[in-house]
Amino acid sequence: MIKITFPDGSIREYEAGITSLGIAEQISPRLAKEVLAATVNGEVTDLNRAINVDATLTLHKWEDAAGKHAFWHSSAHLLAAAMEILFPGTKFGIGPAIESGFYYDVDPGEGKTITEADLVEIEKKMKELASQNVPFIRRDVSKKEALELFNAKGDHYKVELIQELEDGTISLYTQGEFTDLCRGPHLPTTEPIKAIKLTSVAGAYWRGDEKRKMLTRIYGITFPKQKLMEEYLVFLEEAKRRDHRRIGKEQELFTFSPKVGMGLPLWLPKGAAIRQTLIDFLTSLLKKKGYKIVTTPHIGNVNLYKTSGHFEKYGKDSFQPISTPQEGEQFMLKPMNCPHHCEIYNATPHSYKDLPVRMAEFGTVYRYEQSGELHGLTRVRSFTQDDAHIYCRPDQLQEEFKSIIDMVLFIFKSLGFDEFSAQISLRDPNDKQKYIGTEENWEKAEKAIIEAAGEKGLITTVELGEAAFYGPKLDFMVRDAIGRKWQLGTIQVDYNLPERFDLTYNGNDNQKHRPIMIHRAIFGSLERFIAVMIENNAGKFPLWLSPEKAIILPISEKFMDYSNNVLEILNNSDICTLIDDRNEKIGKKIRDSELKRIPYLLIVGEKEAESGTVSVRKQGEGDKGSMKIEEFIEFIRLEIKNEIEYK
Amino acid sequence: MIKITFPDGSIREYEAGITSLGIAEQISPRLAKEVLAATVNGEVTDLNRAINVDATLTLHKWEDAAGKHAFWHSSAHLLAAAMEILFPGTKFGIGPAIESGFYYDVDPGEGKTITEADLVEIEKKMKELASQNVPFIRRDVSKKEALELFNAKGDHYKVELIQELEDGTISLYTQGEFTDLCRGPHLPTTEPIKAIKLTSVAGAYWRGDEKRKMLTRIYGITFPKQKLMEEYLVFLEEAKRRDHRRIGKEQELFTFSPKVGMGLPLWLPKGAAIRQTLIDFLTSLLKKKGYKIVTTPHIGNVNLYKTSGHFEKYGKDSFQPISTPQEGEQFMLKPMNCPHHCEIYNATPHSYKDLPVRMAEFGTVYRYEQSGELHGLTRVRSFTQDDAHIYCRPDQLQEEFKSIIDMVLFIFKSLGFDEFSAQISLRDPNDKQKYIGTEENWEKAEKAIIEAAGEKGLITTVELGEAAFYGPKLDFMVRDAIGRKWQLGTIQVDYNLPERFDLTYNGNDNQKHRPIMIHRAIFGSLERFIAVMIENNAGKFPLWLSPEKAIILPISEKFMDYSNNVLEILNNSDICTLIDDRNEKIGKKIRDSELKRIPYLLIVGEKEAESGTVSVRKQGEGDKGSMKIEEFIEFIRLEIKNEIEYK
Repeated sequence: MIKITFPDGSIREYEAGITSLGIAEQISPRLAKEVLAATVNGEVTDLNRAINVDATLTLHKWEDAAGKHAFWHSSAHLLAAAMEILFPGTKFGIGPAIESGFYYDVDPGEGKTITEADLVEIEKKMKELASQNVPFIRRDVSKKEALELFNAKGDHYKVELIQELEDGTISLYTQGEFTDLCRGPHLPTTEPIKAIKLTSVAGAYWRGDEKRKMLTRIYGITFPKQKLMEEYLVFLEEAKRRDHRRIGKEQELFTFSPKVGMGLPLWLPKGAAIRQTLIDFLTSLLKKKGYKIVTTPHIGNVNLYKTSGHFEKYGKDSFQPISTPQEGEQFMLKPMNCPHHCEIYNATPHSYKDLPVRMAEFGTVYRYEQSGELHGLTRVRSFTQDDAHIYCRPDQLQEEFKSIIDMVLFIFKSLGFDEFSAQISLRDPNDKQKYIGTEENWEKAEKAIIEAAGEKGLITTVELGEAAFYGPKLDFMVRDAIGRKWQLGTIQVDYNLPERFDLTYNGNDNQKHRPIMIHRAIFGSLERFIAVMIENNAGKFPLWLSPEKAIILPISEKFMDYSNNVLEILNNSDICTLIDDRNEKIGKKIRDSELKRIPYLLIVGEKEAESGTVSVRKQGEGDKGSMKIEEFIEFIRLEIKNEIEYK
Repeated sequence: MIKITFPDGSIREYEAGITSLGIAEQISPRLAKEVLAATVNGEVTDLNRAINVDATLTLHKWEDAAGKHAFWHSSAHLLAAAMEILFPGTKFGIGPAIESGFYYDVDPGEGKTITEADLVEIEKKMKELASQNVPFIRRDVSKKEALELFNAKGDHYKVELIQELEDGTISLYTQGEFTDLCRGPHLPTTEPIKAIKLTSVAGAYWRGDEKRKMLTRIYGITFPKQKLMEEYLVFLEEAKRRDHRRIGKEQELFTFSPKVGMGLPLWLPKGAAIRQTLIDFLTSLLKKKGYKIVTTPHIGNVNLYKTSGHFEKYGKDSFQPISTPQEGEQFMLKPMNCPHHCEIYNATPHSYKDLPVRMAEFGTVYRYEQSGELHGLTRVRSFTQDDAHIYCRPDQLQEEFKSIIDMVLFIFKSLGFDEFSAQISLRDPNDKQKYIGTEENWEKAEKAIIEAAGEKGLITTVELGEAAFYGPKLDFMVRDAIGRKWQLGTIQVDYNLPERFDLTYNGNDNQKHRPIMIHRAIFGSLERFIAVMIENNAGKFPLWLSPEKAIILPISEKFMDYSNNVLEILNNSDICTLIDDRNEKIGKKIRDSELKRIPYLLIVGEKEAESGTVSVRKQGEGDKGSMKIEEFIEFIRLEIKNEIEYK
């Protein structure tokens, strides 16, 4: 008998040689129907692999990433099987599961192509094969046997892969007529694969090397139930509708220019206004929370980054150093703001009474991303962090964490992110020597974070071994309106840079001490955050963030003078207002303005011009009645105040 | 007889061969005593040079730059003559007049040095030589003769210079025993040089080449009257007292770090606050004037600058291009914002009805300055322009100029620059082919500038031939509190970039047209402007620019709770306030706060705590009486409003 330990800590005994699926069947037939893969002693495996020793066991259903992974990986094999039948002679590259679905890179042979039009037929064949309910059978083979098999098939991509593997580590999976080189794990059979959709076709160089052959990459996604597929397609549609790249273009928020460079956003006036409104919002919070705002250049001498260690980290794969006419002098685009802030800390002496020093900057940093990785505002090559560094005494760490958590929670609430999760990353308790900083400081810091999170009522997960080598941290993830998770806030203790920059303060013992440094960002990147805001709000911003608050719609040309008057008063009151001076019917003007998502429409006709009022209509809500100009100004200011008031 | 035309247009006849000095003597003995040099037919010459043809003549006294130049150039020769007597064997490099005074680069010989301690003795010798009243005698010589002379003297620096000159262009000047290679012009005699001061000694490479010998540069200044010297020394002291580098350090406004890099300012919190206040001030003006604010990255692909022509202009001597891991891809730190703005213009279509498009950005640009050229905030390697570009139709040019002139005048007035001058730079009428753009557009633009300046009542000087090849311009210079002139605003028409970037708008004829582009900056560089503000105000900023508005001074610890309360209310009302919580006597607290130049001191004792008031003292003005907190907030807001209200 062997002992199996379940995730809840319970232990049961089974005959040696039982499979995970066997165990699931003994627990309940329903579980056995739903389970897709298993983690046995820390390793994800096939459900039908025999267990011969005592083990910990986690059974994975669709809800688990490991369950989905096995499901989609098996679906990739199904795709290949269908290709082999429909397009004989196709050679196969690799076919992994990805975050949403799977792909397979195939080579249909000289002169042949696979297009989107072919996908329907392939899908049909996959469904037919899946419904045959054939098992996935694993076989460990020698390198020689594997080479013979794929050489015989003429599958030279697989042969190339096998040649790089070590003998004794090679396995094959077969379902029906199709056999693939594969580590697994896979589903027990094709049966659970009920809903299948091939989503797109793209080109992909073999092994990502642009000097090698361009293969055809077929993307797909599958589900165990048709209903899940339908939900997914609705989600995709919704995500597309909210795509910040499309909305950014439609609403003229930002643009990219190949001449300026990919991944370098140009903020058009309305986008720049949103960006500035967010900066102003954060700035007013920062001031209330005792931060001092500094401004530093976007470049620094390479020696600065050699001191900080960033040169080693970002040097090779990033923007290369900038030479000057003077020999031996080199600068770098800054990959981080912290070295500059450490130099500011060092510019003046500090006493224990002056701490904490809270230094904030909307600091732009530069990271070189491969062009293929760039994506709208979420993956760019220059982005502006809402960065801050706090230099404090060890005894102040917990209070600082609490204060930052307060800020994070207030901001999430103000911006409508009601669902979020938090993770505390601590040291690996079994490998303490790999971390910099004293044992005492680490213990204090980890305790400070845990207690601060507890006091603020955060529900956190704690991850051991996830801390950086230079300190523990607390990260926040928010859930957007369609359920996607985005990593936003991060609070990070750092024992490293204070050493590297020799930062000190005078203690009350009149001795020099090292301050502790905290890195913290709440949005992380303004660019990415605005993308999240656009997608979360589907382009309809709350009033305070709307770059244009109102539009005046004169009923006819007669009221243009009065309208222009109103326009000037509103704009001078910092309420950015437009005017629709076209010679159009008022109905059309209203419809067009609604389409432009301008929050308030101000209709102006005879009655309004005579009484010094405007007829107010709110986007999506309709008539709000007639108001004097001053009343409308107060009305809109109150609404903005209610949206973002700091409590 | 020859005809001499004077600057006022009057013409008189003289015997051929008369000198400028002779003419001055005929006009008045007093004039002859004061005149230092003359411009004859456009060329500045010695007073004792014979005039043999009809000529225009301007006589230069001390007040003219040309007069000072001859005076100081002659003084440099006097310095060399003194050196030759006191330090025999000294070899001479070059000895020009500069903006304030003159210098001479000398080589005292192997192992010998000249130090500040030697300057007194040299000064004494110069005075002695000057009082001998010897003439400066010019002699044109052949190259051969010049070489023989200086070879015989062993003056190899002069020999090197002569070797590069063309025969027939070489002249020598002799006063007393000393002869120098020189183009002139010089004073007739040493007599006018009455007040002499040698100011400093520095090292300077021969011909600015760091691979060649380091010579000793001796700086000096001279005046025709002792009183002028005394005024100059007072001015120097005053300039030193106002030096923004010293004040910036004392008040903790900004700093430089060798690790970050020379010429790259790090703005400390108080400096960053001043910078932001100026940005906010300009932003609110920009919005009222119909500008749209955009934000662009600090780098751009080199192709962008090849398109704009800036690569050619800034490429070689500046920060070098930034390579990336991708082959053939190169970026540059932006030397100018305009190419980015042109790409934004091109991002959306434009109709004649949408123009003018007024695009503004506080855009940071990078220019490589030699380390020796760097000077505090006035010569830096990265600076932020209050940049804007206006894209308009030809018929809108004049209105746009008027609107910009209004802005410039308002800003000068708000910031206390009451004295300024303006210069209009037009084409060289004799060399029209060197300018880009049509004859019609140039005529219109030049007329528009002249008329706009006229309508706005500007007193301008017009300079022909000073326009850039791409368009005419209007520049503003302000005079600061101690009489120094600073170039600030510039408004520049550009026909070039619209061509290079193929900018268009749809005309009402439904055809594509080229917009005209206007570059305009008012501060020019925020960094430089803040330096000017610091020096103009001697570090005492007007209230609205003061980073800290008030400091609370509790009379004793008993009133700390109430004081902290007041502190929070004021800071939450955006009135940046400090507290002096030291255990010191109130008298000392007041004195210390006055030294720190904080505008308002708020004294808090029993009476104030009980009545919810503060006792207000204004820096430099004294007691303002007791006020409720809310009253004080209104009081300070009103003062700020009065300082910068836009009328």
